[in-house]
Amino acid sequence: MRIKVINPDYGMTAETLRSRERMLAAIARPDTVISMDCLTDSRVEIDSALDVVLAGAEIVKRASQAEKEGYDAVVLYCLSDPAIVACREVVRIPVIGAGQASMLVASMLGYRFSILTTSFQRIPEKEESVRYSGVDPSRLASVRSIAIPGGDPRKDIPTTVRLLVEAGRECLEKDRAHVLVLGCLSFAGMGQELSELTGAPVVDPAFAAINMAELFHSQHLSHSRIAYPAPPARERSWSHGEL
Amino acid sequence: MRIKVINPDYGMTAETLRSRERMLAAIARPDTVISMDCLTDSRVEIDSALDVVLAGAEIVKRASQAEKEGYDAVVLYCLSDPAIVACREVVRIPVIGAGQASMLVASMLGYRFSILTTSFQRIPEKEESVRYSGVDPSRLASVRSIAIPGGDPRKDIPTTVRLLVEAGRECLEKDRAHVLVLGCLSFAGMGQELSELTGAPVVDPAFAAINMAELFHSQHLSHSRIAYPAPPARERSWSHGEL
Amino acid sequence: MRIKVINPDYGMTAETLRSRERMLAAIARPDTVISMDCLTDSRVEIDSALDVVLAGAEIVKRASQAEKEGYDAVVLYCLSDPAIVACREVVRIPVIGAGQASMLVASMLGYRFSILTTSFQRIPEKEESVRYSGVDPSRLASVRSIAIPGGDPRKDIPTTVRLLVEAGRECLEKDRAHVLVLGCLSFAGMGQELSELTGAPVVDPAFAAINMAELFHSQHLSHSRIAYPAPPARERSWSHGEL
Amino acid sequence: MRIKVINPDYGMTAETLRSRERMLAAIARPDTVISMDCLTDSRVEIDSALDVVLAGAEIVKRASQAEKEGYDAVVLYCLSDPAIVACREVVRIPVIGAGQASMLVASMLGYRFSILTTSFQRIPEKEESVRYSGVDPSRLASVRSIAIPGGDPRKDIPTTVRLLVEAGRECLEKDRAHVLVLGCLSFAGMGQELSELTGAPVVDPAFAAINMAELFHSQHLSHSRIAYPAPPARERSWSHGEL
Amino acid sequence: MRIKVINPDYGMTAETLRSRERMLAAIARPDTVISMDCLTDSRVEIDSALDVVLAGAEIVKRASQAEKEGYDAVVLYCLSDPAIVACREVVRIPVIGAGQASMLVASMLGYRFSILTTSFQRIPEKEESVRYSGVDPSRLASVRSIAIPGGDPRKDIPTTVRLLVEAGRECLEKDRAHVLVLGCLSFAGMGQELSELTGAPVVDPAFAAINMAELFHSQHLSHSRIAYPAPPARERSWSHGEL
Amino acid sequence: MRIKVINPDYGMTAETLRSRERMLAAIARPDTVISMDCLTDSRVEIDSALDVVLAGAEIVKRASQAEKEGYDAVVLYCLSDPAIVACREVVRIPVIGAGQASMLVASMLGYRFSILTTSFQRIPEKEESVRYSGVDPSRLASVRSIAIPGGDPRKDIPTTVRLLVEAGRECLEKDRAHVLVLGCLSFAGMGQELSELTGAPVVDPAFAAINMAELFHSQHLSHSRIAYPAPPARERSWSHGEL
Repeated sequence: MRIKVINPDYGMTAETLRSRERMLAAIARPDTVISMDCLTDSRVEIDSALDVVLAGAEIVKRASQAEKEGYDAVVLYCLSDPAIVACREVVRIPVIGAGQASMLVASMLGYRFSILTTSFQRIPEKEESVRYSGVDPSRLASVRSIAIPGGDPRKDIPTTVRLLVEAGRECLEKDRAHVLVLGCLSFAGMGQELSELTGAPVVDPAFAAINMAELFHSQHLSHSRIAYPAPPARERSWSHGEL
Repeated sequence: MRIKVINPDYGMTAETLRSRERMLAAIARPDTVISMDCLTDSRVEIDSALDVVLAGAEIVKRASQAEKEGYDAVVLYCLSDPAIVACREVVRIPVIGAGQASMLVASMLGYRFSILTTSFQRIPEKEESVRYSGVDPSRLASVRSIAIPGGDPRKDIPTTVRLLVEAGRECLEKDRAHVLVLGCLSFAGMGQELSELTGAPVVDPAFAAINMAELFHSQHLSHSRIAYPAPPARERSWSHGEL
Repeated sequence: MRIKVINPDYGMTAETLRSRERMLAAIARPDTVISMDCLTDSRVEIDSALDVVLAGAEIVKRASQAEKEGYDAVVLYCLSDPAIVACREVVRIPVIGAGQASMLVASMLGYRFSILTTSFQRIPEKEESVRYSGVDPSRLASVRSIAIPGGDPRKDIPTTVRLLVEAGRECLEKDRAHVLVLGCLSFAGMGQELSELTGAPVVDPAFAAINMAELFHSQHLSHSRIAYPAPPARERSWSHGEL
Repeated sequence: MRIKVINPDYGMTAETLRSRERMLAAIARPDTVISMDCLTDSRVEIDSALDVVLAGAEIVKRASQAEKEGYDAVVLYCLSDPAIVACREVVRIPVIGAGQASMLVASMLGYRFSILTTSFQRIPEKEESVRYSGVDPSRLASVRSIAIPGGDPRKDIPTTVRLLVEAGRECLEKDRAHVLVLGCLSFAGMGQELSELTGAPVVDPAFAAINMAELFHSQHLSHSRIAYPAPPARERSWSHGEL
Repeated sequence: MRIKVINPDYGMTAETLRSRERMLAAIARPDTVISMDCLTDSRVEIDSALDVVLAGAEIVKRASQAEKEGYDAVVLYCLSDPAIVACREVVRIPVIGAGQASMLVASMLGYRFSILTTSFQRIPEKEESVRYSGVDPSRLASVRSIAIPGGDPRKDIPTTVRLLVEAGRECLEKDRAHVLVLGCLSFAGMGQELSELTGAPVVDPAFAAINMAELFHSQHLSHSRIAYPAPPARERSWSHGEL
Repeated sequence: MRIKVINPDYGMTAETLRSRERMLAAIARPDTVISMDCLTDSRVEIDSALDVVLAGAEIVKRASQAEKEGYDAVVLYCLSDPAIVACREVVRIPVIGAGQASMLVASMLGYRFSILTTSFQRIPEKEESVRYSGVDPSRLASVRSIAIPGGDPRKDIPTTVRLLVEAGRECLEKDRAHVLVLGCLSFAGMGQELSELTGAPVVDPAFAAINMAELFHSQHLSHSRIAYPAPPARERSWSHGEL
């Protein structure tokens, strides 16, 4: 199958995108083709609801384009699942949000999970997100954040992992979590080490989303038209021919 | 006080906007000035999550502009509360969503309320919205829709009211609701007659939102910076100087 | 409009009542007339469920009298909303409980709120009250109490405010609240300073209740007869002609 | 043990009270002494929240008196558990509400239960009551009412039973209940026949309350002082020496 | 009445069983006959879900045998309520789980309860169990464990009580519980002292279960056939004639 | 990877088992090896909680054996997830329950799902199961059953599909479900046709479980040792060397 991964951050280099594709391919089926794009029209990174709003239109456009180009599924590469409902309204191929996928996978690994995020200011949004995920909100043990020096989680990965381990242990010991979820796609690939050092399973949303797309594809499943009806046909301001 | 009402439908005439302002003024404090704008850059009406995505950026921009122009509050004139979290992140004046305001008011009038909406396809979205409103989701008795001939609720108002009465009675009798909520701002002003004919209180979201803005203003209240932190300062693609 | 505020404490001086009316008038519409009575037959202050029981009959009687005298709404000036269901059964004008009104207003200002109360012994009652308020109980972050030297919150207001600030900060930092609610009407008027010193919005139930009464009045709303049916007509022991 | 049963209806004859005591004795331990009083100062029957308010003070007074006279437990003989929190604050002997006791017993007999009540107007109150009972509110399948000709459930008992059977079957078939609860103490003693004719277990609140009082007594249990603290010592308007 | 108590631990001595019967008889009705058996075919003690699986078949067999021998009720003497649903499917006499019974009794004594258990590893299972009990899961304040030197709670009872007091106080002070539940049947009989030393009511599941069986018996109640239907008639691998 | 599928029905022919393996292979990765066993020691089919009890020990034994034989995951081929907690305690490879997996997958396809089961008597068990699945119980729209002539769903598959379509439509129209879940593994393979005829996505638990096992394997995930601790080491009655 062919998966279009939409990375809602702006202006990543081709090299970075290819490196992310390789990382994802490592957990994908051999016959899965992964193609990651980032935003090029909307200069945003998803660090607020404002950013979700600004990125939304381009994300939907890219999801629609992917469907036209014959992709079999779309993965939203962000824990906030930006514009996921609109995407599902617009396309018939499955649209997987890394946030929803990881919370559902976490629910199969233990009774209570915690989310580790990049900034204390993102905690309320993460806490709210579980209400929309389909997961029982009482399964969320806590959301904790780490304070990354400089702010870029991938610049000094050993430091980021060390901070994740510290915060993860607090989730397990103080908040009585059984499972950890990496609460930002920038943490992708750090789950294994975090799991070894804390003793708890760690869900990597990047991986959860890719494999969930494969699950849907192999079973010919896609989201319900009743829950996500097609928008009424009508001229809309962005209709440059794509939709 | 001065309230900026943002109507997320595109291209309404000045005459229509003035007529809505007069309707709202009738329930507002004498010293409240109401100014309604509609979208002019984004050609949308809010009938789907896609529409919310497409309208979002202009709504936030208008909210920010209103704050700069000295308005004391922003009202989002739509039951879907489009872009409400982003608006609250960006401005410090209160941002009132007609959806959230009407559900909270309904909760003070009885133990269970129903929402009447314009199309059966909007029912899932309305059912979900209560989870984010702060209201206990078990207080929602039902969402029912009416099928308006021609689709425009304001073209033949007596027919619309008759259909609302029929659907409202089903909410009261079959779904055991105690209170009705008008589930679309196009029903604004029809609550009184619906209430008289069904015997139940009817919350008009347009009115609920305006008076809630007044409530916040008179008490110097605005949303929490902890729940809605300011987006990190950073260049964003739409930054044409307004934000 | 004319609002009758029923203060369920016994035997306040006329001077104190007038001073409270002036405090409330400051946030009310210019054309709102506020008249506060306290209990004169029932020697109680509301510090227990027993006190609510003892105050109940006089509260209902006063609410009924207010309706007969042409008042447009009744406000119960106590966070416990004493006898609110009975009042709503008996009168057709809106009956606003300061407890319910403040929790609903808090829900519009952030995702999680805490209540600050006068005594650790009142914590269980406050925790239970959210279940009846219509607000999603999972929105309550915590209830914390302060220990006021001497017990009277209004005797040494700077000390009371200082204690509220300390407890409020614990709510924000340890319980991750986004909004604070003053959990006793004796704290009325202290919200502004508490808000400035903690950085979180503070809901003052006295103000919330008055403005909510105005909201109902301007929209011709009152509670549902289905939820609060009139008691069966029948001779009752207190029927001294008023009801 | 000695149980004081407080019947919150006014002015029952001694003969009726003795007959109720005999009915209860049939399910009690041989060494349990049951003494039922009704209200004599407050002319009410519990058919509304107003009635609960009017009956409250006398109920608490009688509970307190029962404790002084050496009774081992108090049973509130009404599904609305009138003044139960105040009674628990005031006395140290267990106070059993027939409503709470019957809902908890029902929860041990099946996953979902329905309540049968005397009037459609009492349905909202019964639905709310489960939220305070300690029982998971999602266990309540429904509340249904019967329309008793003349209004007195005990005047033509065969008719009342027939109506209960009809309504009970609807609960089992349409609302998928597994267990029925008699929703009014006037139905006491009709459970056995209702159970035989519907095939479902039927909880009789009168019996549930008496046996629960015995359970508490034999284990030396009473309600928590933390949940139900003693009211602050203070002169109160009804203090005729009893409290 | 005659109660068969099934102790799911293997190979207890006759002496121990008789001593437990005497302990239970102290809180039972004088005319209640209590007969405790332990498992003899299945070498297990209930310390895991694995143990519940291994004990299940013999427990059901013993419940069925008890019914054939004319017992009036079965009590499962373990907080995990092992095989309770299967037992209820197979027999028509009431089957009381000590876990469910104690949580429901706790709900009548305060708004929030904590469970004290034998090992930190049993905490997740206890937390989950409340979801199936019928009790509102939000009533569970916490589960805390004690670390018993040597592991046998009954070897050095004063030490066990001291540890329970320490953990119980943390439940009351840190987790704001109002009531404590002994979370293991090995703690049976230690409730009184724990209650005196902590000031909170303590539910002893052994006692709660016996008295609940009496409650059901005296009211001719047993579990619903709709919730617990008889298994389809069919040859099953263990059918050695008993069932 | 190699998946051991444990079919908890007794005595299936080798031919049937091979045919099921082929059906599952069709949706599995090309490099996944699927081996299905059925029970051979325990003469049961899972149609009751009794059957779950009787099948439990052999299921755990087989799961443990599979781990020893180097299988990478265990799938429990039954919607009741029999003995899943015990299996997870005993083995370290992932244990996937078809029930839990299908409900979590359903939650990604729409807001509300219904389960279609084989007998009205299984409805309560299915309704309860959602509480343990990790899915928000309010997402379950309904459980409906079909009445299969003769009782064997696979004897006359066109009739079974027709009945599923009828019941499925009622779920969509009357219970407002968005997604259907096949509530019995005997329906495996009928999802596609049911989906085409109803227009809603249909989750086939057999397929959901296999792909979920692959998802876990490719990400090196298994259930949390904190949630599912290893049983204390100790002689147990079935310890024939395997465990």
